[in-house]
Amino acid sequence: MKRTKIIDVLQSTDFNQEVLVKGWVRTHRSSKAVHFIALNDGSTIKNVQIVVDPETIDPETLKNITTGACLCVSGTLVESQGQGQTVEIQGKEIEIYGLCGNDYPMQKKGQSFEYMRQHAHLRLRTNTFGAVMRIRHNMAIAIHKYFHDHGYFYFHTPIITASDAEGAGEMFQVTTQDLNNLQRDEQGKVKYDDDFFGKMTSLTVSGQLEGELGATALGQIYTFGPTFRAENSNTPRHLAEFWMIEPEIAFTDLDDLMGIEEEFIKYCVQWALDNCKDDLEFLNKMIDKTLLTRLQSVVNGSFVRLDYSEGIKILEEAVKSGQKFEYPVSWGMDLASEHERYLVEHHFKKPVIMYNYPKEIKAFYMKINEDGKTVQGTDVLFPQIGEIIGGSVREESYEKLLGEIEHRHIPMKDMWWYLDTRKFGSCPHGGFGLGFERLILFVTGMQNIRDVIPFPRTPKSAEF
Amino acid sequence: MKRTKIIDVLQSTDFNQEVLVKGWVRTHRSSKAVHFIALNDGSTIKNVQIVVDPETIDPETLKNITTGACLCVSGTLVESQGQGQTVEIQGKEIEIYGLCGNDYPMQKKGQSFEYMRQHAHLRLRTNTFGAVMRIRHNMAIAIHKYFHDHGYFYFHTPIITASDAEGAGEMFQVTTQDLNNLQRDEQGKVKYDDDFFGKMTSLTVSGQLEGELGATALGQIYTFGPTFRAENSNTPRHLAEFWMIEPEIAFTDLDDLMGIEEEFIKYCVQWALDNCKDDLEFLNKMIDKTLLTRLQSVVNGSFVRLDYSEGIKILEEAVKSGQKFEYPVSWGMDLASEHERYLVEHHFKKPVIMYNYPKEIKAFYMKINEDGKTVQGTDVLFPQIGEIIGGSVREESYEKLLGEIEHRHIPMKDMWWYLDTRKFGSCPHGGFGLGFERLILFVTGMQNIRDVIPFPRTPKSAEF
Repeated sequence: MKRTKIIDVLQSTDFNQEVLVKGWVRTHRSSKAVHFIALNDGSTIKNVQIVVDPETIDPETLKNITTGACLCVSGTLVESQGQGQTVEIQGKEIEIYGLCGNDYPMQKKGQSFEYMRQHAHLRLRTNTFGAVMRIRHNMAIAIHKYFHDHGYFYFHTPIITASDAEGAGEMFQVTTQDLNNLQRDEQGKVKYDDDFFGKMTSLTVSGQLEGELGATALGQIYTFGPTFRAENSNTPRHLAEFWMIEPEIAFTDLDDLMGIEEEFIKYCVQWALDNCKDDLEFLNKMIDKTLLTRLQSVVNGSFVRLDYSEGIKILEEAVKSGQKFEYPVSWGMDLASEHERYLVEHHFKKPVIMYNYPKEIKAFYMKINEDGKTVQGTDVLFPQIGEIIGGSVREESYEKLLGEIEHRHIPMKDMWWYLDTRKFGSCPHGGFGLGFERLILFVTGMQNIRDVIPFPRTPKSAEF
Repeated sequence: MKRTKIIDVLQSTDFNQEVLVKGWVRTHRSSKAVHFIALNDGSTIKNVQIVVDPETIDPETLKNITTGACLCVSGTLVESQGQGQTVEIQGKEIEIYGLCGNDYPMQKKGQSFEYMRQHAHLRLRTNTFGAVMRIRHNMAIAIHKYFHDHGYFYFHTPIITASDAEGAGEMFQVTTQDLNNLQRDEQGKVKYDDDFFGKMTSLTVSGQLEGELGATALGQIYTFGPTFRAENSNTPRHLAEFWMIEPEIAFTDLDDLMGIEEEFIKYCVQWALDNCKDDLEFLNKMIDKTLLTRLQSVVNGSFVRLDYSEGIKILEEAVKSGQKFEYPVSWGMDLASEHERYLVEHHFKKPVIMYNYPKEIKAFYMKINEDGKTVQGTDVLFPQIGEIIGGSVREESYEKLLGEIEHRHIPMKDMWWYLDTRKFGSCPHGGFGLGFERLILFVTGMQNIRDVIPFPRTPKSAEF
């Protein structure tokens, strides 16, 4: 007989038919007359209940049906008598694929998230992390589907890079040299002639610059790949290795770009609401009781579009009216988390797309407005999360871009290929970056970014 | 007016309507009475022809419409008089977004692939590389769609890893230490206490082992991420950085696994035939005249399933009949490319799935058959490409797996989490790996793996 996945069993109405299921024991309760086994195979957060007459199964087998054990069960599908499920299986034959002793680390319910992180290889078998990982999968699918349906091409930008225009100081170095036996020049400095790439290389901090090469050829591209920051930050918001989505779009402008940002993020959240119902309901119940309401509010309302200078005025008015901020408010500053939260959660009570930021607080490649002071950056600010998307129209003028690169002392020799896009058939274009784990935090209601990626990389931690 | 993408313009029948297109000039031909501009925006390999009456456009603008320049053109959509296209645009207004001088490296047609690699940032604007990148995108989409539709979950395994069970000697090291000022212990050996992760770390060579952690919790997962080999191989088949797809499936067996491998790869090739028609026809004409025939033959026939020992017999018979091989044939050997090609291209004239390999030539985690000599490895061998998929059923017995790990002297301390999957509720499972660029080589007919990834990483080369 062919195995049926539990997600399909639970939707089946083929009562009194034989069915074969395989999975892991979540619980095993018993009385003298009857045993109840809750079996889960990862296809859904829901377990199927196996009802067993102890007279029909070898007692040794019954004894070994412990939490975590892996079973193959055949039986009859019946309408459930009990509460909480519509179908159950009257078990006839049970084979134990894998025993599970009482040293199983996931045995006890209600362990802390810190404990779970230390057992990241087994936490995937719990309700919470199963739900998070299924939602994570669905968000990746939504992202690919959105871009594919809108004519973007998935574009793999390099992970190992020899340019450090954006990430100086926060990059992981990549080498094949034997650190105990380094090649050195006459001054004793490390030489890279014999290193794999013949020069110093690092892990990418962003695929944007290479993404622009794709967009100025293929029209619209997006990246979706791992990104790295060697920042020594032990916070619930930082990972050393995380996944980024970076669409880049030829022939866009500021308004169009903000429209895409809003449409895209709403599409993802709507996808979760449509496709992850059981998992979201579980998280809404167990992790964050405002989760579903918050997701609904994002897809139902329109985002506020707020000029940076207008935003500063609102914050200044708030200060005048007695609002206290830790950091003072003035034009030219980078908004702190407290300012973003005031605008999003208190003032507008809606997601905000802020644009036209002061040039000095933004990156060299952003398009400079006619005022010479502001650039066409666009950040999407979300309740609870803060900045979920950072984007901009890119400066397409060769002269202006070169001016910024020189003004900021960015090493030119690494940038020749980037400048070529402005030299040969330059076009207006823009794009944005979405930190994938930020999105998963928002959509799951989880509080710590280490709990929304299977195996988090953080300072002093690279286990599994 | 809103811009229309060229792929949509070419399918439009809204004749005599105004249309706005944007893109890059591929060619500009002119006579006294009329100018023809071929414009491409990356959405399709096909150009739209702009017909211009030189009397209506400023001569300075006309002069600047050079190959590579970026234009915004409005005009009237009409049925084409000329050959090779059904619609064209009678240009009315032309704005030049970006000039392109005669030092544009992609100006001359028919440059060598080696030249193109040196201009990888601009080769994306050519017909060949545009086609390859659009097909690459479509293959990624097909992969996600296949797995999503079949209930697999996309699972991100770590890129930076502290375990080296599989890749010892071929791994890139990752560090945040200053190589000019390394911390050393009393014996002068490099210390990792102050390195970012507090120990020696490297770039992953495979996500499989972590993928198994996912499959034994979520049932079915797949990875799709970058993978690294610091192998000093300057060949048309090797990249230091490439993308791998690694599905891992709980409750599978050898037959089931081979069925999935065949169904999956046929799905991808069929997707290309269905969704990349124009690009494939171009490549079939310009790169490899047998391409379309070869793709069709893969989806139409069934794959041969060949026991390794049977395969050796066939090769031995061939030798007896006078077939010459460079490497001698005997049971226990790893097949060389010449042997695979003989079986696939000469003997069967079909893709072959070979299984039940000798234990000694395969990895430690493969399920050992009852004969104690062979393991349930399954390689899919393709015409021209050779091995396109390598997979196996995994050994689920804790004792047997531990035996292999000890026999092969694999460092145990890094493997505790992997062994836990066999200790706590072990289940029969298997999986396979597909090198993404190998698939793209097969589907595009390109000959060099450096030409099917945007920015190849190879020894001494990490440009862009």
